Amino acid sequence: MPDQTTAYTPTDRSVPTRDRERASYERAFVHAILDEAYVCHLGFVRDGLPVVLPTLFARVGERLYVHGSTGSRPLRMAGQADPGLPVCLTVTHVDGLVLARSAFHHSINYRSVVVQGVAHKVTDEEERRTALDAIVEHVVPGRAADSRPANPKELAATAVLRLDLDEVSAKVRTGGPNDEPEDVGLPHWTGVVPVSKVYGSPVPADDLAAGIDVPDYIKAL
Amino acid sequence: MPDQTTAYTPTDRSVPTRDRERASYERAFVHAILDEAYVCHLGFVRDGLPVVLPTLFARVGERLYVHGSTGSRPLRMAGQADPGLPVCLTVTHVDGLVLARSAFHHSINYRSVVVQGVAHKVTDEEERRTALDAIVEHVVPGRAADSRPANPKELAATAVLRLDLDEVSAKVRTGGPNDEPEDVGLPHWTGVVPVSKVYGSPVPADDLAAGIDVPDYIKAL
Repeated sequence: MPDQTTAYTPTDRSVPTRDRERASYERAFVHAILDEAYVCHLGFVRDGLPVVLPTLFARVGERLYVHGSTGSRPLRMAGQADPGLPVCLTVTHVDGLVLARSAFHHSINYRSVVVQGVAHKVTDEEERRTALDAIVEHVVPGRAADSRPANPKELAATAVLRLDLDEVSAKVRTGGPNDEPEDVGLPHWTGVVPVSKVYGSPVPADDLAAGIDVPDYIKAL
Repeated sequence: MPDQTTAYTPTDRSVPTRDRERASYERAFVHAILDEAYVCHLGFVRDGLPVVLPTLFARVGERLYVHGSTGSRPLRMAGQADPGLPVCLTVTHVDGLVLARSAFHHSINYRSVVVQGVAHKVTDEEERRTALDAIVEHVVPGRAADSRPANPKELAATAVLRLDLDEVSAKVRTGGPNDEPEDVGLPHWTGVVPVSKVYGSPVPADDLAAGIDVPDYIKAL
């Protein structure tokens, strides 16, 4: 049994059927993968069928938040559902293309987190504000304080869902190809092509007033 | 009614509830978004609950293929399910961070495709080989011909699922922030920070023999 203060407890659902040696339940490791992303893929069931939508999210301690228009489907469904909407929230970073000598052993270096649970609509106004700030901060740290906060009309149009980090697992693949010993003499190049995310130069809006420079927290990206 | 030769027919499920002006059903546009990605997020329902897993995929004409170990959960489930496994396959590219003057109008420039349908296990050996080659080619064009093809044992250990492109929609956001007219005078920097994917220098495997250079199709990444 892992230490619950530093790790999530594996469950039947959160233990992968394949490549279990790639799984991790360490909170710090899971948090780092989540915090490096701002888009997740949120899955839910509608009329018995799966739906997967990309959406922004943020982590605050052991809670994840997603937001959206009060008219959007999962947010409406979570508001109606009692006691909440079962979801699966997945985050994936691709770190490299793994080119083995055999087609079979081609792979991807990646880090992913899968969170399963029940999402609840947040009704407490302070928690809603905290969540909305966190989502802006998650995308660009420093931005929440450098933008106009939501006004009552905007807050009324925005729904926030909370998903507790409880049934959680990370999965990671690192390193080079794992070719079969009998393939080592084959003449194909083999190795890893790193993949990463980069930010380009900020493009000012057409109506940006003269004299407003790119802030340091954006340059820091 | 859009021309079915150039566009997918919108359905109740494939028309988004929000931001309909961002939706597209054009086949060429959908194909381009799919082909630029190699990882998708595959959603399915297990015991009534949603599961979303990242996985490699490829497109061959109007069909998508995913593969995995015969022991992996969705592939086993699709093999058992009759007439197949309902899935939602979603692909997302993040193109930019949209920093508005108001927290509310912060957004992401993105291109996404959502495919809904029923995945079937592929049993025809020729189609299986075509699909597996396509998945390798999808990650690195040119690689399928420059690696050892799967042998019978490897083929027997690999399951392939097919999902027809039928109920499909793309969604895209481009351009700058959409601030409220009354916010234009606020002192916050506003614009877009472009985001893109880059490849690093190929890292050869530890056991790569001397004299095997990085092939041109990898340099072309």
